Amino acid sequence: MNYQQILDTIATEYLSMQSTGKVASYIPELSKIDPQKFGMHLYCINSGHYSFGDNNERFSIQSISKVFALTRAMLLMNDTELFARVDVEPSGDPFNSLVQLEYENGIPRNPFINAGALVISDILISQLDNPKEDFLSFIHSLTGTTSININPKVFASEKAYSHRNAALLNLMKAFGNITNDIETVLDFYIFQCSIEMSCKELSTAFMIYANGGKRLSDEHQIVPPQKVKRINAIMQTCGFYDEAGEFSFRVGLPGKSGVGGGIVAIHPNQYTVTVWSPPLNPKGNSELGMYALERLTTLTGFSIF
Amino acid sequence: MNYQQILDTIATEYLSMQSTGKVASYIPELSKIDPQKFGMHLYCINSGHYSFGDNNERFSIQSISKVFALTRAMLLMNDTELFARVDVEPSGDPFNSLVQLEYENGIPRNPFINAGALVISDILISQLDNPKEDFLSFIHSLTGTTSININPKVFASEKAYSHRNAALLNLMKAFGNITNDIETVLDFYIFQCSIEMSCKELSTAFMIYANGGKRLSDEHQIVPPQKVKRINAIMQTCGFYDEAGEFSFRVGLPGKSGVGGGIVAIHPNQYTVTVWSPPLNPKGNSELGMYALERLTTLTGFSIF
Amino acid sequence: MNYQQILDTIATEYLSMQSTGKVASYIPELSKIDPQKFGMHLYCINSGHYSFGDNNERFSIQSISKVFALTRAMLLMNDTELFARVDVEPSGDPFNSLVQLEYENGIPRNPFINAGALVISDILISQLDNPKEDFLSFIHSLTGTTSININPKVFASEKAYSHRNAALLNLMKAFGNITNDIETVLDFYIFQCSIEMSCKELSTAFMIYANGGKRLSDEHQIVPPQKVKRINAIMQTCGFYDEAGEFSFRVGLPGKSGVGGGIVAIHPNQYTVTVWSPPLNPKGNSELGMYALERLTTLTGFSIF
Amino acid sequence: MNYQQILDTIATEYLSMQSTGKVASYIPELSKIDPQKFGMHLYCINSGHYSFGDNNERFSIQSISKVFALTRAMLLMNDTELFARVDVEPSGDPFNSLVQLEYENGIPRNPFINAGALVISDILISQLDNPKEDFLSFIHSLTGTTSININPKVFASEKAYSHRNAALLNLMKAFGNITNDIETVLDFYIFQCSIEMSCKELSTAFMIYANGGKRLSDEHQIVPPQKVKRINAIMQTCGFYDEAGEFSFRVGLPGKSGVGGGIVAIHPNQYTVTVWSPPLNPKGNSELGMYALERLTTLTGFSIF
Repeated sequence: MNYQQILDTIATEYLSMQSTGKVASYIPELSKIDPQKFGMHLYCINSGHYSFGDNNERFSIQSISKVFALTRAMLLMNDTELFARVDVEPSGDPFNSLVQLEYENGIPRNPFINAGALVISDILISQLDNPKEDFLSFIHSLTGTTSININPKVFASEKAYSHRNAALLNLMKAFGNITNDIETVLDFYIFQCSIEMSCKELSTAFMIYANGGKRLSDEHQIVPPQKVKRINAIMQTCGFYDEAGEFSFRVGLPGKSGVGGGIVAIHPNQYTVTVWSPPLNPKGNSELGMYALERLTTLTGFSIF
Repeated sequence: MNYQQILDTIATEYLSMQSTGKVASYIPELSKIDPQKFGMHLYCINSGHYSFGDNNERFSIQSISKVFALTRAMLLMNDTELFARVDVEPSGDPFNSLVQLEYENGIPRNPFINAGALVISDILISQLDNPKEDFLSFIHSLTGTTSININPKVFASEKAYSHRNAALLNLMKAFGNITNDIETVLDFYIFQCSIEMSCKELSTAFMIYANGGKRLSDEHQIVPPQKVKRINAIMQTCGFYDEAGEFSFRVGLPGKSGVGGGIVAIHPNQYTVTVWSPPLNPKGNSELGMYALERLTTLTGFSIF
Repeated sequence: MNYQQILDTIATEYLSMQSTGKVASYIPELSKIDPQKFGMHLYCINSGHYSFGDNNERFSIQSISKVFALTRAMLLMNDTELFARVDVEPSGDPFNSLVQLEYENGIPRNPFINAGALVISDILISQLDNPKEDFLSFIHSLTGTTSININPKVFASEKAYSHRNAALLNLMKAFGNITNDIETVLDFYIFQCSIEMSCKELSTAFMIYANGGKRLSDEHQIVPPQKVKRINAIMQTCGFYDEAGEFSFRVGLPGKSGVGGGIVAIHPNQYTVTVWSPPLNPKGNSELGMYALERLTTLTGFSIF
Repeated sequence: MNYQQILDTIATEYLSMQSTGKVASYIPELSKIDPQKFGMHLYCINSGHYSFGDNNERFSIQSISKVFALTRAMLLMNDTELFARVDVEPSGDPFNSLVQLEYENGIPRNPFINAGALVISDILISQLDNPKEDFLSFIHSLTGTTSININPKVFASEKAYSHRNAALLNLMKAFGNITNDIETVLDFYIFQCSIEMSCKELSTAFMIYANGGKRLSDEHQIVPPQKVKRINAIMQTCGFYDEAGEFSFRVGLPGKSGVGGGIVAIHPNQYTVTVWSPPLNPKGNSELGMYALERLTTLTGFSIF
């Protein structure tokens, strides 16, 4: 497969396109991003790296961090206990909805909506002495790049606009599904969201999900294969807020998006791919990012389906 | 892969299990099924048929028919028009809920909940002179078995208990999303649900979804590959009512269940598999059927993820 | 109290006002009404009739008929049985919502939303040999006017646009809360809605609710006092769709509105009053009608509170 | 009217009754109340005080305090501004539901559900230098009793179980409908709920609502008549959580209940009445309290309807 030629085709198509989406504006700091940024990076198990555009520039990974958090929690706690506190079903509702949480007694629908990720954060805080350091170390170990860190301005900005997440935490605490102090959980959750990584770094970190749980650089088994299968399945059904079906339908790969404009997708046993374009569609996913990935699976002619 | 040995293992395990599920009772005719029935059939692209138990006994396919109906509609109408009338998102709600339909102005969440399948039925009636004959012929052409037909008792029984589906149709008609007469659509929809097929016949019919749209017997291209990819994606995210995430998580294959106790699943480019066990779990899917398929992907060690 | 002077004041104020509301358009026949029509009629127990404008012109009473239907049902069935099939709580949802009905197992919130009135119609059909004749006779007996009848064009027009009510009926039938044939119930329900009466006729008919259940013309006890109290209470909490609180807050009288632009209100032991102005506010109640009644209780200086 | 005889009848009937309700248990401190407590006090404008049982024993007024808070806010801010931040419609949902609040963009349905009372608390904090002192002073001025105060154990107990109210506050703050610090609002809100008063003190305090806004002891006008009418109207439609219709239907008076087991009701221009019995029905209102008030309006033969 000539991946570089396919990426070049997508890059050319991009030049003639105009995104109708809007850069995330709920946090002032995110709204300042240049909407013209566009980068793509594909990391093939057999043949290495392919890329174009702003693929080496770091951006706010936001909800993409939820995949790392879930993985870390699944390594610290058995699945039965973990998935008693958070379900694995698509939400069918906007990503920060309290409605479903109330109807379902404080058990979030899945670990990739805010409520679910807050429960995962609560679990990590209970299990770890230094959750922030551990979290960064985990990402460093996956990428081999120790300079990855949070953006302190984004962190501060999100802190100032976190009332809805505080509402989710309080509601779940009322149902008994949050153990730690609300401020502590909120702080750690926002820490994760404000991490910055480049397309290349994300493709590299996500390689464990395409490579049966092994880090490709040294074939070290980071996550057991059975757990990788499950994480990929959750990405497939829950990775795109209320647009998981559309992504599955158009792209046909498991993946995860963030409101920073990034999307990472995985073709198990083949490759990982990350795309970054800040303008979001009405459902909160990168508009041109989805387009680029749809073109990728169309031009390669294969997906998981 | 020694599929027969794996199926034999599952058959042995089944003997020591007790289903806590209940046979579907909302239609008197379905409630009469022997809950001890159990059959499984795997059809491998490369190595043919494997099976055990009641795999040759026909049962009511119920919602599994929705996959055939969607396929037929996608062959008659372009995707843009079709998916303007029915979405492709998981529902996050019980399979016959009117709530979501009302909030979303009469556009069903996906073609595999009742509301969506009723829209598909409406489309087929508009496009075809003899929709019932066409529907049976389509299944006959996929299986090579012309004796497949409806169970008239099940058909009559469902007709007598169809008020909720009539409510869905009337609501969608109020929103302008149903073109034909309500009785006609209801009649055709129930016709599809009351078709009876065996595990072997279902595995054979579903082979087009595992074989890139080609019938395996003669490699005739029935459905274009791009459309097969999309149908499989919808099965993955929407094939199990409010349990699509759980099925994806535990089994990791696209598939479709019916309240008759059948489940068909597909491993693209590898095999199709059908299991039949009438007792349903609280979410309406065959309890032991889900277990059997989970064991299958665990024992083979591979799924789409 | 100089009621005529108060009504004249309201009439003068009306001349300088412009309604921002819209005439009901969901039925073609209703949308043809002249939006400038305006009439008001107050019937005082002690001092007789006061009026101005189009108070003698008949209009479509629509949902105002639900009060007559409830009264008739309460005379034929005891309250315990009746209110087991329909509750007496405000809906907090638009008047034709299926959502609440589904969450609450087919028991409508109150007899003045469509679902509740359909249950009442079902009850009347079960209890009466000739429900349509009985219904008209009941109104004739309250008003002393035998020429009151339906508008056949409105009746036909509503029949053609009744899918949403058919959806409500089918859903309630699925829950076992509708006994008779759906077409029959729908036909009788629409019959009631398409009756035409003038402001004066409505004020006269509703006098039983202001006069402890007695017809004022001959002090014949039509409804027991205890039942009148209950009907008035339901009008107070449920008479204005999702605006019952607002009407109570601004006007302070029990009453009932219809999408034909009519509102009837009652001051127990004092008077009945009817106002007619076709343009509706976004919640489906006559915009200037609500204003006129608010002015009435402000200018008289007394309400039930 | 021989009120004492009527109250004695109710007292006798009470002796033979067994409440099936349960004392509020969501706060440990409230769950310790003796369920056998029962008191009733009627204060007639013309003829003074009537009572029996534990009518002089103070209990936790809980949500009854919401009427005082609304009144105080209406005296400090004009209705247009105030009711732009909180609506006056019945909720049709349990008293602490977040669902409606989310659908309606952070504007609570009415001032007598928790969300609405929290907005009122926020308003009072913005308007007053010492809101807690002001609040107690207001009650002291209505009752002439300066010993009325909070129960510090109840206050501490509610503080420890306030996550759901914190969730409501955070959600409203995310919508921009809370101005002050969340902890401050929560603290003042709980302060109000933990005030203790006897039946006699409540009947006395509520006399302004029956007496056109004037304190009966000296005919001093505390609240303008137009505002009293509106407060009474809101009590009528929203005073009993999701049971306002039922209370209106059975009792026919405006009123307000609290989970401490108290209910106050008003017959404008006639009397106020308070009943206290701790066991609550499933909707959170005093079971025997509702019964006692239903008997009162039945035995007197008159209500506002």
